[in-house]
This record gives sequence, structure tokens and C-alpha cells, in this order.
Amino acid sequence: MTTTRTTELLAQLSKVVPAEHLLTDPDTMEGYSHDQAAWAPFGRSLAVVRPRSAEEVQALVRFCIATGVPLIARGAGTGLSGGANATDGCVIVSFEKMDAIVEINPQEQLAVVQPGVVNQTLREACAEKNLWYPPDPASAPWSTLGGNVATNAGGVCCVKYGVTRDYVLGLQVVTGTGELVRLGRRTAKGVAGYDLAGLIVGSEGTLGVVTEVTVRLRPSRPAFAQERTIVGYFSSIADAGNAAAAVTASGVIPSALELVDRHCLAAVDAWKNMGLSLDAQVVLLARTDAPGDAGEKEATLILAAFEGAGATWAAMSTDQEEADALFSARRLAFPALERLGPVLTEDVCVPRGKVAEMLTRIEAIAVRHDTLIANIAHIGDGNLHPLLITPVGDAPARARAEKAFEEIMSEAIALGGTVTGEHGVGLLKMGGLSRELSAPVMDMHRAVKAALDPHGILNPGKVVAARP
Amino acid sequence: MTTTRTTELLAQLSKVVPAEHLLTDPDTMEGYSHDQAAWAPFGRSLAVVRPRSAEEVQALVRFCIATGVPLIARGAGTGLSGGANATDGCVIVSFEKMDAIVEINPQEQLAVVQPGVVNQTLREACAEKNLWYPPDPASAPWSTLGGNVATNAGGVCCVKYGVTRDYVLGLQVVTGTGELVRLGRRTAKGVAGYDLAGLIVGSEGTLGVVTEVTVRLRPSRPAFAQERTIVGYFSSIADAGNAAAAVTASGVIPSALELVDRHCLAAVDAWKNMGLSLDAQVVLLARTDAPGDAGEKEATLILAAFEGAGATWAAMSTDQEEADALFSARRLAFPALERLGPVLTEDVCVPRGKVAEMLTRIEAIAVRHDTLIANIAHIGDGNLHPLLITPVGDAPARARAEKAFEEIMSEAIALGGTVTGEHGVGLLKMGGLSRELSAPVMDMHRAVKAALDPHGILNPGKVVAARP
Repeated sequence: MTTTRTTELLAQLSKVVPAEHLLTDPDTMEGYSHDQAAWAPFGRSLAVVRPRSAEEVQALVRFCIATGVPLIARGAGTGLSGGANATDGCVIVSFEKMDAIVEINPQEQLAVVQPGVVNQTLREACAEKNLWYPPDPASAPWSTLGGNVATNAGGVCCVKYGVTRDYVLGLQVVTGTGELVRLGRRTAKGVAGYDLAGLIVGSEGTLGVVTEVTVRLRPSRPAFAQERTIVGYFSSIADAGNAAAAVTASGVIPSALELVDRHCLAAVDAWKNMGLSLDAQVVLLARTDAPGDAGEKEATLILAAFEGAGATWAAMSTDQEEADALFSARRLAFPALERLGPVLTEDVCVPRGKVAEMLTRIEAIAVRHDTLIANIAHIGDGNLHPLLITPVGDAPARARAEKAFEEIMSEAIALGGTVTGEHGVGLLKMGGLSRELSAPVMDMHRAVKAALDPHGILNPGKVVAARP
Repeated sequence: MTTTRTTELLAQLSKVVPAEHLLTDPDTMEGYSHDQAAWAPFGRSLAVVRPRSAEEVQALVRFCIATGVPLIARGAGTGLSGGANATDGCVIVSFEKMDAIVEINPQEQLAVVQPGVVNQTLREACAEKNLWYPPDPASAPWSTLGGNVATNAGGVCCVKYGVTRDYVLGLQVVTGTGELVRLGRRTAKGVAGYDLAGLIVGSEGTLGVVTEVTVRLRPSRPAFAQERTIVGYFSSIADAGNAAAAVTASGVIPSALELVDRHCLAAVDAWKNMGLSLDAQVVLLARTDAPGDAGEKEATLILAAFEGAGATWAAMSTDQEEADALFSARRLAFPALERLGPVLTEDVCVPRGKVAEMLTRIEAIAVRHDTLIANIAHIGDGNLHPLLITPVGDAPARARAEKAFEEIMSEAIALGGTVTGEHGVGLLKMGGLSRELSAPVMDMHRAVKAALDPHGILNPGKVVAARP
């Protein structure tokens, strides 16, 4: 963009938003120009705006319609697919100043929040009223509801309690035509018209800009619903896969069912010297929160499933401290791996019965491309997070890892899975998406995008590419 | 339509579908020309087709694109809003011959069915494999999965277990451009692109023709999850409303929470002489299916909520026969009322805290328009089914009831509710929808409709009207 054009646009923009809401310093803008997706490209924005109201967002969208400037909404920047990355000359809308919890309503079991509210903050505020907002992405201490809605974020507990879309009742949105509208509802049920609120969830800012979110809440788990943790050590991926399948077959829906592989265990050991990798090739961690004696029964069934599948060691605990220690391998895996180099997080999801096969194929891909790939997985959902680690500054290693990344997606598709379970398409998975979806379905995406963003200003170039 | 044109079209149609799949006898077609929405208008179709395959449906859609003939998909015709009603010259596609259960997969906890599979048939087939498909509309013994998907059907258990959309993982659809596509997924999670499968659910055949449905299943409730039934008699709507609110406040999520009002009780008494209306003005019926001792605790909490809100009588039972007897007032209400005249079923949903106020307003509307309005309600969801009864052939009574019907929707909107909780918009609620949604949201609906049905052949004139 020419300097003259930039100056003109900034002059126009300054008439739309108060000066104190506008950031134009290049270094400051740089911090707002990308999320946590290593390798995803990003450009240089025209400006960053931190609006205080839906009406201000509406004015921004109208500015973008009038000028053709792309608008990219942004939460905390914890995304892993580059969905919030800046393109040259765009306006970044950061929702950090729209972080009010508008309402927590015990009678209706719902909360109304501005998009900048942090997931964990909402959860804590709900807990004070004996209510619970279940979706718990790993980013919960930092990520915002707006970002969670944009990516339809999941987490550990969604194997039992569902993902963000399952909790979004209604949205206030600025549309691609600059209208401020309410979609969805405040009632428990409703089928009045198309599910446009559900359509916006997971659309990564390409179909509308969310300015308020109404989420369904659950009652807090009762005091007699003591959480029980079950851990199993396994000597092979196949055994662990069979154990997870046996849990499903037992009829128990665990409140968590996680896998940590030997690469993670080794990295944690190298850091914390816990000796995990001496004892196990794979660790499975499960939880049940069923209330009363049912919890005991479920924990016993899970333990039996682990042992029946050949666990080399298995145990259960109701002690919170002991349970946290058992889960530490899961919690420490990511930071332990980050010590080895930048981590690129994959997010494929395959049918539950294909998890062991998928992990085996990932091992082969790692060997083929000489790339360290560790795995943590929400194995109860079939949602795998292969973690690709490359040494800093090693360009050939990065090139090999990029190939591995694409091949993992292709193998997931080949096994009847999807390229993204909970992180979104953003930039990194656009190639994968176009391989997963048929050409007519890609055309349906483009038709919906054109219908709701007729000026092409909402996070353009993300998720769905123009027709080749 | 002229006879010549009809003859021409039928000649073309007979090249697209085998003769034995085609019904053109006027009397036969009449039986396929409307659902169970009393009063909703319907026209005379060109033909009824009973396809055997998705490819045949695709050929039909292409025929409709080429000729401009409207296509109206139809399940069992148990709809209550006229969504499947024929328009003059349309092709009705009845899915009664596409009724195969393609797959029930315990490992993946999913089922794949053709749209003509009856809800109850699927539920029974799942039960044989210790799996459970929860959505249980009152029409479950007759209604089909295709129809359930079209209206996003709910039911009694959705207060705890959710509605049809919560269970639809993927769809095979013939699009408005005549493509046969797969939307959604077979995996537990997935965020690859827009949620087009979720968008199709509840769109009443206006955005695509569903030819196969993949639904998520739950494990059957364990043997130790004995259902407990709790009944409460109340002397006023206000007391019953307070009792339902107290159940919510107790932190229990009941597996059913139903209300039956005095008009229903009187009609049941007039038929079965059970003496219900002597004992109660309003009956609340609750169930809990929490496993083990938690079930006992939950039932006790519900009972305490009923008694604390002033129940004149309340009891709980674990005996299935006794529980069925307690629920009989709920089950017999509709047929008891039908003995008095044609019943028009309303379906508004209001915030839980507004149920008592809504019921009071409905009483006032009944008086104002001299119309008998009985109420059954999924009160745990705030989903009310006011039942408007008019004597056969009494035109002035019908005119009054039609006004009452519209006013009930307007009052629901005024209380922050929606005009339809689970039955859909169809024809009867198009006026209500346009009052509930803002003009820009109606425009979004039209834009999405135009994007996915560019030829305007998919159930045109239903749900969303052309811009006034």
C-alpha cells in the first residue's frame, strides 16, 4: 500500500474510532499481527483497533465496506492455525477492552459475555453461582470466548460435555453488510429459522464479527460427584488403543480420556527427571465425575478396561493431589517439548477405532521425514495433537516438518477423519481442508461466504480460498 | 398448471424415475399433500415420487432445476407446522422406501440411516447393541429421521439430553445445484469448515434434500441407572412454575420435567374418569435417570422442590408400572383433547423464568378469544404446547382460534421467547418468524437460501418468505 493511501485511510479511520482506541505504532501492531501458529505467514496491518462497544465495531465494519480494507477480529491470539493473522493493510480488531461479563443467570442457566472475556474468568465467575461453563481448551487461562467461538474450541472435558458450539445459544454479530444483529436465542430450545448462530461458531471471523455471546451453562457438579482419576501405563500404542476402545465398549463416558506418548514422556523426564519413560511407552489418563457410587463403578470399569488391554501398571485415585500428579505428564508435555524447539501443533481427528492406526502412521511419517513428532491426544474423541518439533533456525528440518504436517492431514483423511478437530482451519489447514472436502462442498462454502460477506472484507483469504 | 404442461412434465419425469416409484393418482397424492398441521393450506402436487436411492433423488432435483418444478421432501407427515405441505404443481418426494438402517457402530457410537427410518425403529435397533439415540419426539413411533432432521425435533428427554441437531454428525445431501455431497463428519469432533450439516438441520427441506443421516449415539443407560418418577399436584400455575424453578435451582438436571394443566386433566377425566381434575389444577411430572445412589438423591431433591413450592400432593416411585400410571395424564392429554375437536398445537418456548407468566397470558388469550386452550409443556425447557381446540365446522370459532394462535406467538416474543421450540416454522409460523427476527436477520436467511438454493426449487415459500 502506498504511503498516501495509508495516510488517507488512517485519517478516515480516525473519524470512525476515538484516537485512544487506535494503535498504529509498527512495533505495537506487530504484537497483534499473528497467533501462536508457528510458520503461518502474517502481514503488516494498517491499524489495530480496540473497540469498547458493538456500535464501534459496526462503525469499523462499515468503514471496511466503504474502503475495502479487510477486517480481522482477534481474541487473545492463542490460536494455532493462523486464523487471526494479519494481512497487509488490514484492520485488526482486538477485543481485549470488551471483556465484561454482562450477565450470569442461574434461573435460565446462561451467561452473556463480551467477546474479550477470558474462558477461565467466565468459569470462575460461574462457579461462584454454582454454575459451570464446560468447554476447557488448554488455552483456557488466556483465550477469550470470542476466540473460542471463532474456532469452536474443545478441550479435555468435551469427550463427555461437548464443544463450544454445544453451549452457544445466541450471538450478537456485526454482519458483512454492516448490520448489528442478534442470532440464536436465550431459550433452552428453538427452531425459529436457520441456525445462523451455529453457522457463525467455528467460522473464524469470516462470516460475521461477534460482539456478544450468550452461552448455556450447566449446574456445577454436585459435591457428591467426586472426580476419580485412572491412569494406565502401556507398552505399545496398540495396547493403549485397545484400552481406549474397551472404555467405550464398557458403556462409560469418561469426563476425560487422554493419551501421552513416549516422546512426551521422554521430554518430561529430560526436564523433570520423573522416570516416566522407563515405566511406559504410552500413558492413558482417564477421569470420571459420575456422582455417588456410580463414580466408583465407572472408575472400576475404566480400570478393568485398562488392565484387560494389557496395561503394565494401572491405578485409580480419588485424592486430588495424587490425581494431579498422575496428570502431570499430560500437563508438562507441551512445555517440556517446547524446550527442544518451536512446536507446531497438529489437530487431526479420526474415528475412535482408527486412533492406533493413525498413531502408527504418524510414527512412519516421523521416520520418513526425519522429524521429531510427539503425541498428546484426546483419545476418547479420536482427536490427536501430533507435536512437530524442529530445532531453531534449521531450515531443512522445517521443510521436512512441513511435509510431515501435510502428510498427517492426508493420512487422517484417508482414515475417514478430519484435518482439524478443534483448532480451526485458519491458514495452516487450508490445503488440508480442500483435500478433505469435495469440490461441490467447497463451492457451498464459497456461496455461503459470498452470501454473508458480500464485500469480502471479513478475514478474507482464511479458511476457504477463492475457487482455483 | 395447464393440462398440456402437466402432461409434458409427467412425461419428462417418467424418464427420470421408474414408473413404479411414481404416484400420480389424485386421491393417492392427496394423502401425501399435507402434514398434521390443522388449518395449514396445501395444494395439488404434480406427482409423488418414492425414490430408492440418493442418485434417484439427485436426478429428481436436477429435473426440478431444469423445469422449475418445486421439490418438497416428506417423511411420515407428522409435522405440525405445514412444512411438508404440497404446493400446486410440486413434486413430493416421500422417503418411505428409503428406510434402511445402514450401520450401527458401537465402536464409533454412531448410526447411519436413510431418511425414511422411523425414530422408534432406530431406537430399538440401537438398544439391541446397548446404544441409545435420545431424541424422542411424541411422534417417535411414526416420524422419520429425515423429518426429525428437517425440524430439529426435540422431545421429553431433551431437557437433559438435547435435540436432534445435538446428535447429527453428518448428512448426505442433494444440494440445490443438484450435487450429491457429504457434509459433516463421522468423527466425534471436527471444525473443518462451516457447520453446513448443522445449518441443514432444522431448515425444513429448504436448503438441501437429505438422503442419509449419520447420528451420534450414547451408550444405553446402565442397569444401575434406574429411572425414578416424581409427581406433584399444584393448585395454581404460579406454584407449579415456582416448583420447576426450584428444580433448576437445586442443580438437578431431570431427564424429564413436564407440565399438564387443568384443561388437560379435565379432558382426561371426561374420557377416563380418573378424578385427576378434582385433585389438582396443574400436575408436574419429573424423571431422573442418574445412576446409583445419585438417582435417589436427585429424586429426593426434586420431591423437596415440589413440596417446597406448595405441592398439594407429591410422591416418587421407582416402580415402572406406577410411574407409567403417574405419566398417564401426560400421555392421555392429547387424545383426550382430540375427542373435543380438531387440535391446533402451538410450540412456543420462553425463558424458564417466564413460563408461569406465559401460561397466565395464554389463559387471558383463551378468555379474550373465547377459545379452549389446554397446555402441556416441556416446562424444564420452557417449551409450551398450548393446544387450541375448536368444534368441527365452527368457522367463527376457528377464526377466533387463529387470532389466539398468533397472539400466543407475539406474547412469547414479548417475553424474550421464540415462536417455535421444536416443531419448526413451516407455513403456520412464517408470520411469527418475521415478527421474531429483525429485518436484517430475515435478509440473512434469504441470502443463505439464495446461496444454497439458487434455483428456488427446494420447498419454496416455506419458512422464509420473499422480501415484502
